[in-house]
Amino acid sequence: MSQKLTLGVIGAGRIGKLHVENIINNVSAATIKSVADVMLNEATESWAKGLGIEVVTKDYKEILADPAIDAVLVCSSTDTHAQITIEAAQAGKHIFCEKPVDLDVKKIVAALEEVKKANVKLQIGFNRRFDSNFRKLRETVDAGKVGDVHIVKVTSRDPAPPPAEYVKVSGGMFLDMTIHDFDMVRYLTNSEVVEVYASGAVLVDPAIGEAGDVDTAIINLKFENGALGVIDNSRKAAYGYDQRAEVFGSKGSISNDNVRPNMTMLSTEAGVEVEKPLYFFLERYMDSFKNEMVEFCNAVINDTDTPVVGMDGLKPVLIGLAAKKSVKEGRPVKISEIEAEFGL
Amino acid sequence: MSQKLTLGVIGAGRIGKLHVENIINNVSAATIKSVADVMLNEATESWAKGLGIEVVTKDYKEILADPAIDAVLVCSSTDTHAQITIEAAQAGKHIFCEKPVDLDVKKIVAALEEVKKANVKLQIGFNRRFDSNFRKLRETVDAGKVGDVHIVKVTSRDPAPPPAEYVKVSGGMFLDMTIHDFDMVRYLTNSEVVEVYASGAVLVDPAIGEAGDVDTAIINLKFENGALGVIDNSRKAAYGYDQRAEVFGSKGSISNDNVRPNMTMLSTEAGVEVEKPLYFFLERYMDSFKNEMVEFCNAVINDTDTPVVGMDGLKPVLIGLAAKKSVKEGRPVKISEIEAEFGL
Amino acid sequence: MSQKLTLGVIGAGRIGKLHVENIINNVSAATIKSVADVMLNEATESWAKGLGIEVVTKDYKEILADPAIDAVLVCSSTDTHAQITIEAAQAGKHIFCEKPVDLDVKKIVAALEEVKKANVKLQIGFNRRFDSNFRKLRETVDAGKVGDVHIVKVTSRDPAPPPAEYVKVSGGMFLDMTIHDFDMVRYLTNSEVVEVYASGAVLVDPAIGEAGDVDTAIINLKFENGALGVIDNSRKAAYGYDQRAEVFGSKGSISNDNVRPNMTMLSTEAGVEVEKPLYFFLERYMDSFKNEMVEFCNAVINDTDTPVVGMDGLKPVLIGLAAKKSVKEGRPVKISEIEAEFGL
Amino acid sequence: MSQKLTLGVIGAGRIGKLHVENIINNVSAATIKSVADVMLNEATESWAKGLGIEVVTKDYKEILADPAIDAVLVCSSTDTHAQITIEAAQAGKHIFCEKPVDLDVKKIVAALEEVKKANVKLQIGFNRRFDSNFRKLRETVDAGKVGDVHIVKVTSRDPAPPPAEYVKVSGGMFLDMTIHDFDMVRYLTNSEVVEVYASGAVLVDPAIGEAGDVDTAIINLKFENGALGVIDNSRKAAYGYDQRAEVFGSKGSISNDNVRPNMTMLSTEAGVEVEKPLYFFLERYMDSFKNEMVEFCNAVINDTDTPVVGMDGLKPVLIGLAAKKSVKEGRPVKISEIEAEFGL
Repeated sequence: MSQKLTLGVIGAGRIGKLHVENIINNVSAATIKSVADVMLNEATESWAKGLGIEVVTKDYKEILADPAIDAVLVCSSTDTHAQITIEAAQAGKHIFCEKPVDLDVKKIVAALEEVKKANVKLQIGFNRRFDSNFRKLRETVDAGKVGDVHIVKVTSRDPAPPPAEYVKVSGGMFLDMTIHDFDMVRYLTNSEVVEVYASGAVLVDPAIGEAGDVDTAIINLKFENGALGVIDNSRKAAYGYDQRAEVFGSKGSISNDNVRPNMTMLSTEAGVEVEKPLYFFLERYMDSFKNEMVEFCNAVINDTDTPVVGMDGLKPVLIGLAAKKSVKEGRPVKISEIEAEFGL
Repeated sequence: MSQKLTLGVIGAGRIGKLHVENIINNVSAATIKSVADVMLNEATESWAKGLGIEVVTKDYKEILADPAIDAVLVCSSTDTHAQITIEAAQAGKHIFCEKPVDLDVKKIVAALEEVKKANVKLQIGFNRRFDSNFRKLRETVDAGKVGDVHIVKVTSRDPAPPPAEYVKVSGGMFLDMTIHDFDMVRYLTNSEVVEVYASGAVLVDPAIGEAGDVDTAIINLKFENGALGVIDNSRKAAYGYDQRAEVFGSKGSISNDNVRPNMTMLSTEAGVEVEKPLYFFLERYMDSFKNEMVEFCNAVINDTDTPVVGMDGLKPVLIGLAAKKSVKEGRPVKISEIEAEFGL
Repeated sequence: MSQKLTLGVIGAGRIGKLHVENIINNVSAATIKSVADVMLNEATESWAKGLGIEVVTKDYKEILADPAIDAVLVCSSTDTHAQITIEAAQAGKHIFCEKPVDLDVKKIVAALEEVKKANVKLQIGFNRRFDSNFRKLRETVDAGKVGDVHIVKVTSRDPAPPPAEYVKVSGGMFLDMTIHDFDMVRYLTNSEVVEVYASGAVLVDPAIGEAGDVDTAIINLKFENGALGVIDNSRKAAYGYDQRAEVFGSKGSISNDNVRPNMTMLSTEAGVEVEKPLYFFLERYMDSFKNEMVEFCNAVINDTDTPVVGMDGLKPVLIGLAAKKSVKEGRPVKISEIEAEFGL
Repeated sequence: MSQKLTLGVIGAGRIGKLHVENIINNVSAATIKSVADVMLNEATESWAKGLGIEVVTKDYKEILADPAIDAVLVCSSTDTHAQITIEAAQAGKHIFCEKPVDLDVKKIVAALEEVKKANVKLQIGFNRRFDSNFRKLRETVDAGKVGDVHIVKVTSRDPAPPPAEYVKVSGGMFLDMTIHDFDMVRYLTNSEVVEVYASGAVLVDPAIGEAGDVDTAIINLKFENGALGVIDNSRKAAYGYDQRAEVFGSKGSISNDNVRPNMTMLSTEAGVEVEKPLYFFLERYMDSFKNEMVEFCNAVINDTDTPVVGMDGLKPVLIGLAAKKSVKEGRPVKISEIEAEFGL
């Protein structure tokens, strides 16, 4: 392989476009030759052409068939991730796949098997691992500065709830939102979740409840290494996007505060104010999107493991399913119980 | 009653002495006439005399028999609280009783009944309600500034674990330490806990595990008003006494950071350092001990409700027992289940 | 001398009363036998009697004549400090004298000489040295953690301006307010100011300007050890009492933030708010008033140097006079120039 | 003019290269056709070609002669800024000129006159105005939230001193470093400096003193609107790049803290640590470099005033010269005195 990767991007929605622009502006190790979008329209076509992209097509199979393409980014709708990943693997392409790989465990397993067989690289789009805050937490844990991990805590609250229609198809909060946090606790502790107890409530939007989901949750976790964990989620934090974590251990704790647009402080008779957290996830995590892509390209070029491998795509889905079951049945659920259901 | 209360203090251990000195120095509405301590020794006697206390005795019944005494502070060992409270009520004395009232629900109930019958005031020593931080949290909730409460979180970690011998008689972590947090979540949400799921671990000191207790825990709570809660506890935070809470609601959140000995920041090539949290609970909560006593005296003098009534002494014990059962049986436990056990 | 000091307090205004109550409640090494106040009224008399003070008089000479008195606190009006200090020294009493010793350099010098001749202890009431924040700054400098001092900065802003009448008799802002900051920079750097350039303005209250004073100032300082310094003052900070300092040196900096009534943070759609600084100087500096008195008593009892000696009372006045002259003449003024004026 | 600007960049050193890459990656309103560098070497040539730049030359006059070029960026050495600006104006090109325009007031004035005559846009490279922190300070002042400005303070300390050789040609600290702060105080107060008193010292590196400059300074400022100001500078802050400001007014204050690489906090027995400020100015101010270029292009395209006009290039130099004179002569210096020297 040349030192410069040639990429094809499958799916040109919000996240696909973001990756394309990021790569063009910030990832010198790669060029984008092709973009495919099943809903291709004039706007997308002119956007892509304006960026100098050579091939713009409705059919992702064109990309997979192109021998010049080294790797593909799977940014299409979730229900197509597994199938495209399988075909891409069969075509010998390295794969960056957005999260979640799928909502169906069997389809994820099938995709991972094909990736393994084809011996191509796969990286899952858990971008928060590449945020400077969460990365620092993990590095601090790895450096032994907090000692043995006793407790991991994640606070993850969105600025505004999605439409109730969305939660019907998304798999629900645990699979569309908390899945990032399930990945995060695995990343921060470097240990596997073995049991989940989740309590959920509908406090933000009754329509979400009517759609069969919760919008507020607290999730208790037990880890293989004996540590305990907790995630708290809300679909709506009035003050913005709340993204914090803490790892507490035998020697102390490392935590992060939210990122604000600036570090100013206004002091008046009315009070002392600092800025609210960044509101929008694209703004909050922009650097992480850039970094994950740089590291994906480096892994392919240098033939090393990607930083978020296939199993990292499967595990959070299992935890999410355990959390859903826990809320439904009002009891703690072991991950092994979910695995057994799928013969894993 | 005169505008100045005459108090007797029963039990002159660490907390009894603290109250005595606090009252003398800071509570102008009261004078201490008598101190009783079953283990009375020369040092305690000379300490009390040096403070100008008139009566120093081994026998608390002397205090209860003294018609000049308006109210007593029950600061003796936990297993004597209920009995002394009963006798004090029968003697018509108002009562400030240290927490927990007892580990035995039946004895608490009996004491509360006697208090009710005698129509005397009772205040339980949940001092943290009188801390300026936690009070501000509650006031902010009451003022509607965070809207409807969705999530309450308490982090409560001690700087150093107690001896394993202690946990054998204390009722264990949930009843000697978390009991403050159970009170706090009730205080902050102004709602009752209806269900508890607790996960515990022995990560700090194996001797605590051998004594049949846990030293690390995460406790999931459901409230009557639909809110969710979580408490995380550790017997040992290497950096000091960690006492934080957050109330998150439909309009935002109010939280508190730890109190530090000063607000300095040192910036060098090695890093940027601020002070560690105050280490010792007496230092951290000194003002709260003062405030609770002032308010107790005011409630007696003005014949108003005390700010922490008898039921506030019972409820956290029920929650603690539910938490213990939850860990033992690995399932969520309803408070009503515990109440039923005791015919409540 | 016995291990317990017997004190007389001269002047029972706000600061005198504060010291009396502090000593009674918090300074176990001393008892107050007598209080004198030239304006003695019934309220003050009953206040003193209520605290168990034996002698309450209009005439401070009674206190000086009492052989049972070991030391006196001079808390009378500024224009009497020097004279009472002289008489107290002649009577062999140790002296705690409120700041400033006097506005008249010659009277200060005379008082210091008498103190020296009588070989009694003298401590000046620069209480901020005993605040945990500023003390930590000094200790950090002393420990060498910021290396050689290059820059010292003090921000000192009052919550509300005094009446214009006050500034006519107070000596003006530099002598009634900045004098604390002149003491602070000497304390923090452990070096003497050699030159002052001050710029002043009337931006808060025109009546202050009409009274011949400024209400806003920035004061540039040069120190004997080569360091530079700056103080900024305002008579009115809308958000409260602003009391910060920074010492910057070859190895880094140590600074302090303001003290707030609690460490809470409110996050809503409207913004993220923390508490304003403590507003009132008595609340902000309460502990420092206590600590200075403890250390004064210890110095007398143990026959060691007081932590704020007589020269510490003189130097800030010289700097204040230099600052006034600098504003008036629009040029930097050497402290030696002021000293020369007074033949020092 | 087309909606897309065609730019030529004159000078391809560190700052020139930064602008080029910024524009290519982040400024969609412009394309770079040409780059000129008098020291052009192979590395620079291949860098430019790799970025798709059409014309790479040693001779900036080629760029000025090219009718396709709408605007030029003057990023060459300081002593050539004025001459190139003059020629660019004569060629009818709009101009973005790095700071300082020149060290010689007469040459600046001549350049500004030529710009005026040619009626082209000129923007000076005071990038800090485009930083989100300082911009927020200015916006807050403009919104009247701090009321009338009474005091402005800037702390500006570099992480490491330049070589002494540099200060010999740079014009010294006041003209190469503080010049940013002189611009900042003008920007934050929206008022002109009328008088300067500066005290300087050599505390960081004796070689800087031998080269005739200072490395530590405190600069007292008076403004046309009556406000007072102070800047403190050091060539070396051990903990990194210290960039803070505060505007204090009749209604309160707005200030900013340093920007850190992440918002993590490590709490251990050894202490509580947050991250040091960003160390390198390119990292700290990256977004501001991007923003200034976007706004320059917009000003040209929309034919509006640039946000940093020619006079903004002249004023800070006059203040810098006044500061140098003040240190040399040990007295406050009026800006009008400097202006008179140059017949302004």
